[in-house]
Amino acid sequence: MSELNKLQKDFFNTLNQIQEEAVSIAFGNYKEGDDIEDLLYDVTYNTIYSIMELIDGYVKDSLELDIIDRKNKESLRTGIELHDTCASFVKYEK
Amino acid sequence: MSELNKLQKDFFNTLNQIQEEAVSIAFGNYKEGDDIEDLLYDVTYNTIYSIMELIDGYVKDSLELDIIDRKNKESLRTGIELHDTCASFVKYEK
Repeated sequence: MSELNKLQKDFFNTLNQIQEEAVSIAFGNYKEGDDIEDLLYDVTYNTIYSIMELIDGYVKDSLELDIIDRKNKESLRTGIELHDTCASFVKYEK
Repeated sequence: MSELNKLQKDFFNTLNQIQEEAVSIAFGNYKEGDDIEDLLYDVTYNTIYSIMELIDGYVKDSLELDIIDRKNKESLRTGIELHDTCASFVKYEK
């Protein structure tokens, strides 16, 4: 693996934090007998939502990112916030 | 919500597919008595890895994306593949 620059280190460390937090919250709320499928939707919803918040710039001050189309450089964020929009496409329960 | 363009629709529909697939695989492998924390790490690992693959361009042919720094337009993918690198920062078990 090539040496990571500061931006890359910040990004991947934040992905790590997002995973730890999502798992910790879901595990903390889990009670024996809870529906496992609902649990899996809930933890993946929170993970995806947090990654979209990260790209939108709401998770870490040092990271102001954008997702673009490689061909025409158009931003995927044009007219929308990724984290708001993703909430209509992913589920927090089955 | 503003009307989404084709790129945005493809992206969010693929996020939905990534979630459905990650949940389906994890739920299919789950057996009563399995460690819940390991299950949560596993499903979030697969979700994060798949989103990085999506941005790297390996999930959907119509989506060739990049993550850039908004300020200097530098690509986060410089010298690395996001999905390869993220595997060193997120865990598939506790």
